[in-house]
Amino acid sequence: MKAARLSRFGKPAEVIELADLDEPGTPGEGEVLLEVIACPINPADVLMLEGRYGAAPPKLPLIPGAEGIGRITQTGAGVKHVKPGDLVLVPGPGTWRERLTAPGKSVWALKSKADLHQLAMLRVNPATAYLMLHDYVPAEAGNWVIQNAANSGVGHCLIRLAKQAGVKTINVVRRESLVAPLEAYGADVVLVDGPDLDVRARAATGGAPLPLAIDAVGGSAAQRLARCVDEKGVVVNYGLLSGEPCMVDGRDTVFRDVTLRGFWLRRWFSETQPAEIGKLYAKLAALVEDGTLKIEVEKVYPLAQIKDAVVHAAREARAGKILLEMTGR
Amino acid sequence: MKAARLSRFGKPAEVIELADLDEPGTPGEGEVLLEVIACPINPADVLMLEGRYGAAPPKLPLIPGAEGIGRITQTGAGVKHVKPGDLVLVPGPGTWRERLTAPGKSVWALKSKADLHQLAMLRVNPATAYLMLHDYVPAEAGNWVIQNAANSGVGHCLIRLAKQAGVKTINVVRRESLVAPLEAYGADVVLVDGPDLDVRARAATGGAPLPLAIDAVGGSAAQRLARCVDEKGVVVNYGLLSGEPCMVDGRDTVFRDVTLRGFWLRRWFSETQPAEIGKLYAKLAALVEDGTLKIEVEKVYPLAQIKDAVVHAAREARAGKILLEMTGR
Repeated sequence: MKAARLSRFGKPAEVIELADLDEPGTPGEGEVLLEVIACPINPADVLMLEGRYGAAPPKLPLIPGAEGIGRITQTGAGVKHVKPGDLVLVPGPGTWRERLTAPGKSVWALKSKADLHQLAMLRVNPATAYLMLHDYVPAEAGNWVIQNAANSGVGHCLIRLAKQAGVKTINVVRRESLVAPLEAYGADVVLVDGPDLDVRARAATGGAPLPLAIDAVGGSAAQRLARCVDEKGVVVNYGLLSGEPCMVDGRDTVFRDVTLRGFWLRRWFSETQPAEIGKLYAKLAALVEDGTLKIEVEKVYPLAQIKDAVVHAAREARAGKILLEMTGR
Repeated sequence: MKAARLSRFGKPAEVIELADLDEPGTPGEGEVLLEVIACPINPADVLMLEGRYGAAPPKLPLIPGAEGIGRITQTGAGVKHVKPGDLVLVPGPGTWRERLTAPGKSVWALKSKADLHQLAMLRVNPATAYLMLHDYVPAEAGNWVIQNAANSGVGHCLIRLAKQAGVKTINVVRRESLVAPLEAYGADVVLVDGPDLDVRARAATGGAPLPLAIDAVGGSAAQRLARCVDEKGVVVNYGLLSGEPCMVDGRDTVFRDVTLRGFWLRRWFSETQPAEIGKLYAKLAALVEDGTLKIEVEKVYPLAQIKDAVVHAAREARAGKILLEMTGR
């Protein structure tokens, strides 16, 4: 069985390799055997390859990949809630392979007619955007939210999920060329980042509440978002794109009661009941099926071209996600 | 009547001046007339003189001073809860003057036999330390708290108030020479700041909970504290001593759920019921009287020497607070 394997950290294309592993065995009691159909390469995966992901570096060797779409091919004794042929979100980490066995309780049948490439990206970006939008500050209609890295997968999801909740979005980007495409995608306001971001953000909202900022960048970009939010506002950091620590001015923490928090989807999984997890994904899958959620795909690579795929995924200026396809369909 | 007045922002000694103002008139309905006895010069006052205090610069000219101890000399119609001769905390801002009128509801009789210089410093530092210790994370006996700028007025108060609550303190300083004096003062552990602070802090606690960090410095000093606290820990920033924005590593926000918040005493006053405010200060005054709380005083200046006093207060290496005495007693 083919899999992408990481034996040391470094430049993505140098450290990822295509490996030939033993087939996973027959699923044991309570287990399921899955065939992986497709997986995205997310920014967090690139960080993982570089050894910059997680509080402590994970043990090597490992198979990367946080998510994917797959199909049950066999169930072990005692597994009743899924059956061969069922579509499932592949539980990560370790999804960049052709087949795997998993605990039955980590999967549920995803009843959706949506495009499989879109469903391959359902587990991480849409859920991340949804939870950041709803779990820190109540997403009240008429409120605004500001996010940077707005052209990312999470950024796109947030634009559409906010609109659905009646929340307007200020989308911060680094290139003027992204303004028109993001507006076409549904962004209410798109601003090119700069030192006067707070002034322009306030002008855009016309004084309506802006209690939430979503930061994927850290460094001074986080600081500029913190300047934008209202008194008692929250900046939620979920990404480390700049490689710099998040900064927040003392004038914002002390005098304006602005809070900096962090979001990690893996923690949400570990702290949330399976029923609640299934409920969120059913809701998000329906939003993919009706077209509310749609993440652009720039290119799909077969697993065998994993090196080309990670190089492409690490490129800064992309118009969409890079996907891996595991098996011919 | 003499007062210290600020007409422009700049170097403290250049911008502060002794002014001769009209006497405050007879107190109107609901007002009181106070004689100010003594006031400290706090780090925030120095920032104010430099134009670095507050979310937006305050209007000029102004009389600085956030606190002080005074005595009621006259009460206006309808004021029943205080009478001439009562000792009161002087409500700021604007305490660096000989006499002032104030709304009666902003003062209450402080029944304390404690040293007047200590009471002059009761309003800001002890309350700041108490509220940061108790209001963000439950102060459970056996927990630890870590603070930087531990040799400050707030730092000293926190050491004593934590001990009273059964919470142990790690006190971060920048000079080895402060270790012994702080240990003598009651610090459980004193560490000189450095890149491996988190390793030394964990060694000191032996794995006991360390859910709270108190930061007066910002910049990378805040980042080092954020590395020290437990998963889901809180860093409370209340000071801007470095002049740098607070930094927190994305590994701490995202992967360890560490939160950065801010504390501002003036906000607490504006959001808290008078009865609760009076209750806290009665408790703190009792702790001054029994010797639990004692802030070192380095020098007392008469108001007429305000320029020398602010220069002295702005010096980095002091052994205690600088006080202003307003009236001969």
